[in-house]
Amino acid sequence: MIGRLNHVAIAVPDIEAATAVYRDTLGAHVSQATPQPDHGVTTVFIELPNTKIELLEPLGENSPIAKFLEKNPSGGIHHVCYEVDDILSARDRLVSQGARVLGDGEPKIGAHGKPVLFLHPKDFLGTLTELEQA
Amino acid sequence: MIGRLNHVAIAVPDIEAATAVYRDTLGAHVSQATPQPDHGVTTVFIELPNTKIELLEPLGENSPIAKFLEKNPSGGIHHVCYEVDDILSARDRLVSQGARVLGDGEPKIGAHGKPVLFLHPKDFLGTLTELEQA
Repeated sequence: MIGRLNHVAIAVPDIEAATAVYRDTLGAHVSQATPQPDHGVTTVFIELPNTKIELLEPLGENSPIAKFLEKNPSGGIHHVCYEVDDILSARDRLVSQGARVLGDGEPKIGAHGKPVLFLHPKDFLGTLTELEQA
Repeated sequence: MIGRLNHVAIAVPDIEAATAVYRDTLGAHVSQATPQPDHGVTTVFIELPNTKIELLEPLGENSPIAKFLEKNPSGGIHHVCYEVDDILSARDRLVSQGARVLGDGEPKIGAHGKPVLFLHPKDFLGTLTELEQA
């Protein structure tokens, strides 16, 4: 069912410093920082030949990554995102097998403008797992 | 400098149960479990179209992932691995910029039979980062 690894997300306290690590130290191609107020984060994409790393910095009062950064003040890997062809049929298959979808269980439009869902880390090896319709 | 994302490694307490999550619930292609006594882990590879997820279960007395699982008993994302063309020149560039290489700083032969290094998480956004010569 799952297809490509769309991205790995790394939460960081300072996206400018984090971008410099990937651009200058690791020599990768990086995008401009983009505030995404609807998602409570500012994003930078690290473009690798086969996938992306997504840097996330909290934005605003109720950022969904604020608690993670309280526990991991230097930053850390926040989630992985897999592509699926049809997010509703993927969700229904997962739920029928007992997996929990976060929130109200309905896909939302994610930071890339496509429908996404987040799956409960306890059901997926302690790993916050996002599905994105390809 | 960095090239493809070679893999994302997820440490798990029970590799058989973890493999079932990826094979049966997420519908991915999974490899056989392979004990790697030289590396203190048993590995399963999840083959995605563009990269791999590597499941790691501790093996033996001094597994390098034992402490991580004490802190994260349900499992969690342990490291990311990027490919580089020349691991010695990559290391020298990183060290010249102040980054720390774990261990004695010399590449070791990793679980895929290729030279690898691990970089200090504090220098890379709280993320344990492996480099593998492609």
